[in-house]
Amino acid sequence: MKTHRHEIKITTHERLEFVNITAEVEAAVRASGVQEGLCLVNSMHITSSVFINDDESGLHADFTRWLEAFAPYRPGTDYRHHLTGEDNADAHIKRQLMGREVVVAITGGRLDFGPWEQIFYGEFDGRRPKRVLVKIIGE
Amino acid sequence: MKTHRHEIKITTHERLEFVNITAEVEAAVRASGVQEGLCLVNSMHITSSVFINDDESGLHADFTRWLEAFAPYRPGTDYRHHLTGEDNADAHIKRQLMGREVVVAITGGRLDFGPWEQIFYGEFDGRRPKRVLVKIIGE
Amino acid sequence: MKTHRHEIKITTHERLEFVNITAEVEAAVRASGVQEGLCLVNSMHITSSVFINDDESGLHADFTRWLEAFAPYRPGTDYRHHLTGEDNADAHIKRQLMGREVVVAITGGRLDFGPWEQIFYGEFDGRRPKRVLVKIIGE
Repeated sequence: MKTHRHEIKITTHERLEFVNITAEVEAAVRASGVQEGLCLVNSMHITSSVFINDDESGLHADFTRWLEAFAPYRPGTDYRHHLTGEDNADAHIKRQLMGREVVVAITGGRLDFGPWEQIFYGEFDGRRPKRVLVKIIGE
Repeated sequence: MKTHRHEIKITTHERLEFVNITAEVEAAVRASGVQEGLCLVNSMHITSSVFINDDESGLHADFTRWLEAFAPYRPGTDYRHHLTGEDNADAHIKRQLMGREVVVAITGGRLDFGPWEQIFYGEFDGRRPKRVLVKIIGE
Repeated sequence: MKTHRHEIKITTHERLEFVNITAEVEAAVRASGVQEGLCLVNSMHITSSVFINDDESGLHADFTRWLEAFAPYRPGTDYRHHLTGEDNADAHIKRQLMGREVVVAITGGRLDFGPWEQIFYGEFDGRRPKRVLVKIIGE
């Protein structure tokens, strides 16, 4: 069995931002030498997500509006979490809606994807250095 | 280490529909010969989900009403994604709510399930040929 | 390849409750002897979740209020699922929002976590014996 570990470093310009990380995950799969196996990609932070969806800016605007409607950014004390001095309860909730991680099959040395699948990092409390973990196991 | 790959083909009659795929995943696990390992089951499309919940039609009606309330099907330009000519932004959002994939343990050559766990394909933009990927690794 | 299986037993005092299970998952990783691999942690029930987020009681109160707003506990027949005699359709929906499982990398014999990641069992229909499955594969 082979294993491989890679960290993707991301600092977004905006508080909420979606970053396509597919190419860097593919590079990690090639570096691993794994032909058949599984690839875990997860945010190492609890106010951001890794998810698979479409690379279309209009859709990302729809995601943003929808996330803001259900978990609005409100730095005040509407959120109990903010009694600790934090201002990012909305980001913790948005992360639950979009998910922490994806697991992708590796077949023939490549990510085994459907026609439109792309991997995104979804940042909800950005402008700070963050990390995404890629862990590959297989043979 | 053994690996096994199987594709489940699904074309739903309705735009939104839930399909129980547990038996076909179990058959893939038997075909793999894996006794101990992990089984990844994911939609290969970005407007549908794979999830685990109850096989009860009333609950599925509740899921449908709830999904429609939070991400209504509206072919017009309420959604920015529709400026591209698409009409399925709601389906991309519903898929985020219900999830892309499940990972299930394999123990003693079988899916290691609790008492009521069943695997579903959740289609949100159907009436077209779609695929679900089953990837099994273990020994 | 090594595999290891462990069940965590939980009976909550409240109907909705969050339980930090990180220490028991870490103990299972140590017991497995796996140095490099993957650790699956999933609820074996369909009205509860396993998720990774912050161990902060104010945030948990925010999660609870948010979940209750989007899938309120209503034992009556607002939910179609309740025509079967059940009263927990809200718990099935809350579980979809918070997720069934997490997959965590194992590196150097430990859970490969970011700075604040903690694993929680999220119960939405409790006061009964429930189980969480930990399945570890690697070498």
